[in-house]
Amino acid sequence: MDAISVIRAKRDGLELNGEQIDWIIDAYTHGKIAEEQMSALSMAIYLNGMTGLETSRWTNAMIASGRRMDFSSLRRPVVDKHSTGGVGDKITLPLAPVVAACGAAVPQLAGRGLGHTGGTLDKLEAIQGWRSQLTSAEMLTTLTDTGAVICAAGEDLAPADRKLYALRDVTGTVESIPLISASIMSKKIAEGAGSLVLDVKAGSGAFMKSVSQARALAASLVSIGRAHGMPTTALITDMSVPLGRTVGNALEVREAVEVLAGGGPADVVELTLSLARAMLEAAGIIDRDPADVLTNGAAMDVWRRMVTAQGGDPDAPLPRAREQLTVPTPATGVLTELDAYFVGVCSWRLGAGRSRKEDRVQMGAGVEIHAKPGDQVTAGQPLLTLHSDTPDTFSYALHALKGAVRVAPSSDDPAPAIRRPRQIVLEHVR
Amino acid sequence: MDAISVIRAKRDGLELNGEQIDWIIDAYTHGKIAEEQMSALSMAIYLNGMTGLETSRWTNAMIASGRRMDFSSLRRPVVDKHSTGGVGDKITLPLAPVVAACGAAVPQLAGRGLGHTGGTLDKLEAIQGWRSQLTSAEMLTTLTDTGAVICAAGEDLAPADRKLYALRDVTGTVESIPLISASIMSKKIAEGAGSLVLDVKAGSGAFMKSVSQARALAASLVSIGRAHGMPTTALITDMSVPLGRTVGNALEVREAVEVLAGGGPADVVELTLSLARAMLEAAGIIDRDPADVLTNGAAMDVWRRMVTAQGGDPDAPLPRAREQLTVPTPATGVLTELDAYFVGVCSWRLGAGRSRKEDRVQMGAGVEIHAKPGDQVTAGQPLLTLHSDTPDTFSYALHALKGAVRVAPSSDDPAPAIRRPRQIVLEHVR
Repeated sequence: MDAISVIRAKRDGLELNGEQIDWIIDAYTHGKIAEEQMSALSMAIYLNGMTGLETSRWTNAMIASGRRMDFSSLRRPVVDKHSTGGVGDKITLPLAPVVAACGAAVPQLAGRGLGHTGGTLDKLEAIQGWRSQLTSAEMLTTLTDTGAVICAAGEDLAPADRKLYALRDVTGTVESIPLISASIMSKKIAEGAGSLVLDVKAGSGAFMKSVSQARALAASLVSIGRAHGMPTTALITDMSVPLGRTVGNALEVREAVEVLAGGGPADVVELTLSLARAMLEAAGIIDRDPADVLTNGAAMDVWRRMVTAQGGDPDAPLPRAREQLTVPTPATGVLTELDAYFVGVCSWRLGAGRSRKEDRVQMGAGVEIHAKPGDQVTAGQPLLTLHSDTPDTFSYALHALKGAVRVAPSSDDPAPAIRRPRQIVLEHVR
Repeated sequence: MDAISVIRAKRDGLELNGEQIDWIIDAYTHGKIAEEQMSALSMAIYLNGMTGLETSRWTNAMIASGRRMDFSSLRRPVVDKHSTGGVGDKITLPLAPVVAACGAAVPQLAGRGLGHTGGTLDKLEAIQGWRSQLTSAEMLTTLTDTGAVICAAGEDLAPADRKLYALRDVTGTVESIPLISASIMSKKIAEGAGSLVLDVKAGSGAFMKSVSQARALAASLVSIGRAHGMPTTALITDMSVPLGRTVGNALEVREAVEVLAGGGPADVVELTLSLARAMLEAAGIIDRDPADVLTNGAAMDVWRRMVTAQGGDPDAPLPRAREQLTVPTPATGVLTELDAYFVGVCSWRLGAGRSRKEDRVQMGAGVEIHAKPGDQVTAGQPLLTLHSDTPDTFSYALHALKGAVRVAPSSDDPAPAIRRPRQIVLEHVR
């Protein structure tokens, strides 16, 4: 077996066999084939695709490159969730405690933000003392004691994926459905949950811009889950508008805590409950309504214990950025557009996100949103508040917002679609 | 400008603009973009192609990565030749002296063998004392004094191509017509000849297996030459059978000298004269018949002076391999096939070629051919003689010949095509 013959086969549109896939992933993980060879293969996969069989085997080989976690000692059903990432997507923060409060165990291995989308670990690090790095033993203890844990993946979880993702990032080979699917599912299957619910986002702020792309990705993910004996369902959800009323690390934690206290923005509550219901169903827990644990304090209780177990102080005040700038509404009428992508870029530029893995993020930076599409707005009233420790970024961040906002004059009779409350969950894929 | 946006554009099937191409080649030459990025781009080009405009600009950018040679001080018209490579292709050795003896100047920057095809420099190094490395000044002196020079390209001739070729070699992106065309033409245009004749080979022993592939490559090469103001013509020639009766370094030099002495195998003489006529026509020399300089000793005289000018002794005995093995004819009848590729691999395994650039070649190793397709043969008579300093390679070399030879029983009435003398020059592309 040699790298060039495998590259040539995929380049020429052939289906790779299991031995070729196992060999290439193993050789790449151990540095036996060069980055430039894997890069050429990734581009050939990008352009010529992989069959379901190839993608499933590729996923398997990436799982086999590392260690598989084992939660079989837990007495609760273990259910996992993955979001493909969006702007203002703080859902994991209320969701894990909600589902745990209903009786399932939720081990969430989360990531960091890159580009215009935020990362769950960056958000939680806004909480004083909170640690993302846990040993396997600590993870299991937290999960046993509280029912939920959100932490960083260990180095030995699908190391092939870690290496390949970094390569794809610099070689224009990220947006490939088979490669994305294998990347997500290898980590999720290696995590060892009993079932999985996916939040596949569609819209300007998401990786998949259209619902049809999101549907194709969801179908690919669900089919890999099935091939590996892991019951998997996907919700396709809207990401054309930021979720909730905050984008940025500490700002989003604050909003998540509001939801756990029984309040919070309607879209964040709706998506949290939709995903919670899907997870409980997957876990076989059919007698609990997740809305109850938001109102009776049970979810908040899990949150506080979970944060505390990871060294965090749930009562410490959250960091606030040193400077604020109000962005006024440009016209009077109905807000028809608040583009998730542009708001995400704005928040990133304010310091909430990073351009390179090694960059530090500002805990207090981000965007507060005072009106959402469908709302009646008045010219000059505050539309957004920008937060940053580095006020020299304000002009740069404002520039990113060009074209993000649209207001239809009230005199116009806007299309009914605009008046109608925005639908968050668009489709279920099973 | 950044590498990822250029990769994405080509990946998405867009035409790259001139600025993108100039930037990427310059950045790659200077190590500002990574090998894995250029590799992904090469695979995207392999699969999505390049337009004529893109290929021409790519060629230009590779020329601009180094120094351009200047032969304008010579009083003769300067004409260059390039062969896409084959088995037993020693044509450059008699051709350069023949064309020089007819009044043109022939600067031949030649290469080394890799895989089953031989390299002109390896062949000439079989001559005692001969040096391939010349300074630009030495090259110009030899050319002025003798009319011909065959030497290695300097480090500063299209360095981008040197770097990119090494990368393509290990990433399965060699067989791309736009990339092959740009690679060949960047070096040939940088060499600074006034016109160019290409020998584009088609058949099992060539890079292009079919005439239609060879035609597409020839058309691409000729069109780049035209776009750069360099009159270029191409001959498509047969490479299904080894050229001449020898394959291997010293063996081929011996045969080339036979041709220069007015003898030698008919196919080698025919191809030498066809290419010489095309080169003389391109150089505007219409009153000379190259066949004359083979019979009157003028070409041999240029050869001796050229070899001597580069430190070689034209009278020294050529190296001979320590061991020989005769391969008998398997049956009586008409030899219908002697596959160039298999014979090339056989010679390579005997030690005449190399697997990696850093390997050494055996000067005496190779294959002598005692019958060619169309010849009447008798079972048991010598068909090939294998030469090697390392007799343990004989079994390996014999294995490579499996399927290379076919003999039709004399009792059969073979198709007229087999009786007809083999046609070497298949098409002209202008």
